[in-house]
Amino acid sequence: MPTTSNRGMQIGASPIRSLLPYARQAKNDGVHIYHLNIGQPDIETPLAARRYLAADDEPIIGYGPSEGLPELRTAIADYYQKFDGGLTSEDVLVTTGASEAILFTMMSCLDHGSQVIIPEPFYANYIGFSAMSGVDIVPITSTIDTQFTLPTIEEFEQIITDKTKAIFLCNPGNPTGQLYDKAQLQALSDLVKKYDLFLIVDEVYKEFVYDGEFTSVLSLPQIEDHVIVIDSISKVFSACGARVGCLITKNAAVKSSVLKYAQLRLCPPFHGQKLALACYAGTDHYIQSAIQTYQKRREILFNALSEIEGVTCYKPKAAFYNIAALPVDDAEDFCRWLLTDFRVNKSTLMLAPANGFYFNKSLGKSEVRIAYILNKEDLTIAIDILSKALIAYKEK
Amino acid sequence: MPTTSNRGMQIGASPIRSLLPYARQAKNDGVHIYHLNIGQPDIETPLAARRYLAADDEPIIGYGPSEGLPELRTAIADYYQKFDGGLTSEDVLVTTGASEAILFTMMSCLDHGSQVIIPEPFYANYIGFSAMSGVDIVPITSTIDTQFTLPTIEEFEQIITDKTKAIFLCNPGNPTGQLYDKAQLQALSDLVKKYDLFLIVDEVYKEFVYDGEFTSVLSLPQIEDHVIVIDSISKVFSACGARVGCLITKNAAVKSSVLKYAQLRLCPPFHGQKLALACYAGTDHYIQSAIQTYQKRREILFNALSEIEGVTCYKPKAAFYNIAALPVDDAEDFCRWLLTDFRVNKSTLMLAPANGFYFNKSLGKSEVRIAYILNKEDLTIAIDILSKALIAYKEK
Repeated sequence: MPTTSNRGMQIGASPIRSLLPYARQAKNDGVHIYHLNIGQPDIETPLAARRYLAADDEPIIGYGPSEGLPELRTAIADYYQKFDGGLTSEDVLVTTGASEAILFTMMSCLDHGSQVIIPEPFYANYIGFSAMSGVDIVPITSTIDTQFTLPTIEEFEQIITDKTKAIFLCNPGNPTGQLYDKAQLQALSDLVKKYDLFLIVDEVYKEFVYDGEFTSVLSLPQIEDHVIVIDSISKVFSACGARVGCLITKNAAVKSSVLKYAQLRLCPPFHGQKLALACYAGTDHYIQSAIQTYQKRREILFNALSEIEGVTCYKPKAAFYNIAALPVDDAEDFCRWLLTDFRVNKSTLMLAPANGFYFNKSLGKSEVRIAYILNKEDLTIAIDILSKALIAYKEK
Repeated sequence: MPTTSNRGMQIGASPIRSLLPYARQAKNDGVHIYHLNIGQPDIETPLAARRYLAADDEPIIGYGPSEGLPELRTAIADYYQKFDGGLTSEDVLVTTGASEAILFTMMSCLDHGSQVIIPEPFYANYIGFSAMSGVDIVPITSTIDTQFTLPTIEEFEQIITDKTKAIFLCNPGNPTGQLYDKAQLQALSDLVKKYDLFLIVDEVYKEFVYDGEFTSVLSLPQIEDHVIVIDSISKVFSACGARVGCLITKNAAVKSSVLKYAQLRLCPPFHGQKLALACYAGTDHYIQSAIQTYQKRREILFNALSEIEGVTCYKPKAAFYNIAALPVDDAEDFCRWLLTDFRVNKSTLMLAPANGFYFNKSLGKSEVRIAYILNKEDLTIAIDILSKALIAYKEK
């Protein structure tokens, strides 16, 4: 039998999804699971957009442009005006989810053995996309004690080598809910200019900000050629399955390189793009309502977590995630045990062990990521289950 | 300004799309272009499937399973019964178009510097996906003089080295319209067993067979662990924009590796999968009608090409492509000139220079690929334009 590739064997399985078999078994046993483990919003996709798509009967679902539908590129450029993006449609390339935008960015900007600096903990799939493109991640650690504040510019500067090609941020942060402010981004902007690096920012959660103000790196002066922004409709419009994201840059060489990768896969999905177009057409009210919903849940979650003995937590400024340090040695074992053994009224909950979001595998062992994507009643019940579970787990 | 990656600079632009700026200019000048250059069918996507999708109002367009919707995996496994696939849903992983299935296959089965043998001319994007995954293509040449018959087993065997990990076929062939028969595939099957190689077959055009019978490599005995099949709904159901394909294998290690890449990109597009599900639900009549349509066009194209002086052509057995050798030294120049200079009644035509489908860049210089994806009236006019153009080009 021929053997599979070494890289295929080495690439890690998704940390969030590794608990899935246990969750499936629990469901088969009739247990209700409160899912706090995944960034799948429970808010409905905009009804107007779904209706628009249903009414749009194109007789041939044909290839579109590799760059994405022109009207969608324009809509995204226009949308970014509220963040002072200063974009034209030519600066926007539509991708099959933010996932593809990350892969295209790695492929286009970095070579095998190039280094990219990423503050950890970070979205775990960055590791897989780096592996796929042979890029080396150099993590720079932030910790729960400082609420995952961005490390200092000096700390970044210390780890820059001649192989460093980029600094990669997620702002607002998944899994931390941290928000980087304008001064911090400006300082990073000076740094990338000094060392001639790319500044890649995943801004997928930019709408969901509760304390402070979001600054897009696209609005910073005089670093146009350094900046690549990754965005998506998945979270803002609760349309994760549509698979529509985008890669934004004003750097002509990057555009040209990315386009070649885009042509290889022919085009982004037709229906998702049509849905996206309708989402961008008029959804201020929808977004405001979503922000209010998440903000209320943030309070509920923070208050409930604060009352559990031994739990270290903080109030996240943005996104819909929160990391909590639990009074357990091995959060992954605890999360598995929740699925296999612990029940309250035939229910349990599923959390994401935070260790998977750290590059350094000795970190975050007692931490979990909690996504507040349940309605407030369910969220309250879920945290009550967590509270009871911690006591039972300790006594075990 | 930071420089883009070397690999990004080296990766070739799409050969089919390189003429697009000239086509765009011609259109802006009011010229009608008969497109014979691209594999975009002009047949409508099944109406029943479009209606099914429009009626399916899911309130949250959420992430689906990374492997694809379970019911779609089952539908694809069932569909392959007519080709004696012998599949279960577990053997099918849904991808974002055949494009992604090709990339996942390369990533999962081959390492950097591994070699894959591919009969040329072949679908040009195989080059890009190989480059993306650092795999070396070793072409084995077939020629128009033999109607692109598969090279002999001895010729394959001669170029196998210790770096060879796979043989990759497109059957039926894009761009050749060639069909490999059961005996040829059986002989290749013996070869891959002898050298412990993967046998990867792109079967995207399998429904469109006019002479002879299609054999899926999935039906061959005792090579289950060697075989990976790539398929798509794009051509069969005229749904290129839906971006739904699949990767089929019974090899457990390949499945496990591919799943990790699939989890990285989260899931295939929701709407395309729903459309695909409805396509597979009941479309025998649709497919039969499409086959008849292409078969008639094949006759028209072959008869018309045969009458043009200096053109070498053949009657393709399958798919909807044909390569023709034209009496010109540089078909790419000729194709460009058609777009920039030549008009008949304010119309011209667009062809794909076949050189882009050869790995060896000295081959196919006078050849073009013609896709018969126009109705018979338009096809007749288009070939008449070709005939007149060849005379004018010669006199130029």
